[in-house]
Amino acid sequence: MGLVDDFNTYRSAMNEKIMDSDSLIIKRLFNLDTHAYTVGHLDIKAKELIGLTCSLVLRCDDCVKYHLGKCKEVGLTQEQVQEAMGIACLIGGTIVIPHLRRAFEYWEELQHV
Amino acid sequence: MGLVDDFNTYRSAMNEKIMDSDSLIIKRLFNLDTHAYTVGHLDIKAKELIGLTCSLVLRCDDCVKYHLGKCKEVGLTQEQVQEAMGIACLIGGTIVIPHLRRAFEYWEELQHV
Amino acid sequence: MGLVDDFNTYRSAMNEKIMDSDSLIIKRLFNLDTHAYTVGHLDIKAKELIGLTCSLVLRCDDCVKYHLGKCKEVGLTQEQVQEAMGIACLIGGTIVIPHLRRAFEYWEELQHV
Amino acid sequence: MGLVDDFNTYRSAMNEKIMDSDSLIIKRLFNLDTHAYTVGHLDIKAKELIGLTCSLVLRCDDCVKYHLGKCKEVGLTQEQVQEAMGIACLIGGTIVIPHLRRAFEYWEELQHV
Amino acid sequence: MGLVDDFNTYRSAMNEKIMDSDSLIIKRLFNLDTHAYTVGHLDIKAKELIGLTCSLVLRCDDCVKYHLGKCKEVGLTQEQVQEAMGIACLIGGTIVIPHLRRAFEYWEELQHV
Amino acid sequence: MGLVDDFNTYRSAMNEKIMDSDSLIIKRLFNLDTHAYTVGHLDIKAKELIGLTCSLVLRCDDCVKYHLGKCKEVGLTQEQVQEAMGIACLIGGTIVIPHLRRAFEYWEELQHV
Repeated sequence: MGLVDDFNTYRSAMNEKIMDSDSLIIKRLFNLDTHAYTVGHLDIKAKELIGLTCSLVLRCDDCVKYHLGKCKEVGLTQEQVQEAMGIACLIGGTIVIPHLRRAFEYWEELQHV
Repeated sequence: MGLVDDFNTYRSAMNEKIMDSDSLIIKRLFNLDTHAYTVGHLDIKAKELIGLTCSLVLRCDDCVKYHLGKCKEVGLTQEQVQEAMGIACLIGGTIVIPHLRRAFEYWEELQHV
Repeated sequence: MGLVDDFNTYRSAMNEKIMDSDSLIIKRLFNLDTHAYTVGHLDIKAKELIGLTCSLVLRCDDCVKYHLGKCKEVGLTQEQVQEAMGIACLIGGTIVIPHLRRAFEYWEELQHV
Repeated sequence: MGLVDDFNTYRSAMNEKIMDSDSLIIKRLFNLDTHAYTVGHLDIKAKELIGLTCSLVLRCDDCVKYHLGKCKEVGLTQEQVQEAMGIACLIGGTIVIPHLRRAFEYWEELQHV
Repeated sequence: MGLVDDFNTYRSAMNEKIMDSDSLIIKRLFNLDTHAYTVGHLDIKAKELIGLTCSLVLRCDDCVKYHLGKCKEVGLTQEQVQEAMGIACLIGGTIVIPHLRRAFEYWEELQHV
Repeated sequence: MGLVDDFNTYRSAMNEKIMDSDSLIIKRLFNLDTHAYTVGHLDIKAKELIGLTCSLVLRCDDCVKYHLGKCKEVGLTQEQVQEAMGIACLIGGTIVIPHLRRAFEYWEELQHV
């Protein structure tokens, strides 16, 4: 629970500061990001799996956390999430494993929120 | 057609040489790779979308080509493939765009094979 | 001259196909990209140096070529461009050097266009 | 203020240990690094913008912090720094955004040092 | 001592959870990893140097810590480890230096375990 | 033979142009690079294995080619080189495999030079 709250609180606070700034490109990029994961030709489950696995192979812990939260929200099961992360580890190699550890920890905490 | 044939021919020839070698880890990794994209908790379409987008954000043209071929094979539509690649470009940034160009070119050639 | 023409021709042809597609995110990303390098709080020389060096440390040959063309266009001197690329090599390490070789070759060809 | 002090203290302490070691290549690399950002064909503002944005696209928080400190020191404005970081986010994609959050936080703390 | 214990405790706890999960690919990848660093055509010192330097250029602090522990265990000297890390910094550039700082700190703590 | 000659000829020609330029940082980086792989606390075989595997996980074909040539020159056997590359593929994941294919092809050509 601590991990999830900490992540969300910090993320919201800093996003607010960024949106308050005079950074046109960044604001538009944030805006694009918001729309990219809504339903389109692909459903939102497929899109969140893309977001999760791309975040994992690029080894961005915060991005992984964010998409794990969304994966749970859109109804992906633990087995599906873990299978997707397995593919990401295979693609990205053992260098991804430390991030997988933190992903497993965060996923566990998400179940208690 | 040239692009697709060239890619497949070279890939097969080199894979054969690698499998003929005395490289236990590599052989097992190839073996893992073969099984990773078969149906499991996720269907093969979801898995190919993961393979495609992870390849794109990691900017590996050959991996993108391989998964584009598989995406077509498993019945993903052009709209779905392009939407997935759009998300990958957003995650990976404009640095991905040169790889997107080659992906569009390869996808087009795949339609004529 | 061949290198420069080849690059520009392929880039334009593929960009056109991408813009003709049904890829909303990609189109918006292209649009953002067009506006990012216009004058703002920073002048266009500073922005092109950012584009060039980020492309070099991320080791994207096509991005490097594009920004080398723009660097010449906005009036950056050879000495400035080479110094910037030196910093990029230091930040990104010797792994950047093969891309530096191709950058030097392309810059030379740009002088004869 | 805490963030800035923590960063500088740890960095100085560890740099000292590294320079005390028997690591010839590393020492020369440190030496090269010191000279790379002094005035040359480019002024120090352009060089710090290069250092900052390359650090951001390569997603190195410590490198970003270091160059934010230098950007402030050489007189770059908040608007210029934010615009440069916006370009870096566009080039590197949304995967850069968690690092942008920490960069905004650090920049804010720098104003109170 | 704190750093080493913290790292090992967390790593073991999470590895156990991962091995308890239903993640076939991940388990096989872990299994491959265990065997990869045993003696073969190369001795274990050469293999640990490979593991260490690849971890460093890929900028994975946890992987670096793990291989530093193994480097000490298999009898590599401080001079050898530092020289290998110097080559990694040269290959990967100054972006690797923040990870080198943490590697030096961890190596020092390893001597007191 | 074609691959090896092509690589060496282009590399030498461009290195010469780079060394003729007014790029102090780059020249010093080249100089550092030349000295890094000479015998020190580690022997040259260990150093070339480091160079080869770091190049492979960072997915730089030209760097891989260069170090494959050096590996052969310093007397590493095919079994040793392949085992090292297997570890690199495990660390870096299946995304490395297209580069492994080209490495196998180049190594084969090296035997006929």
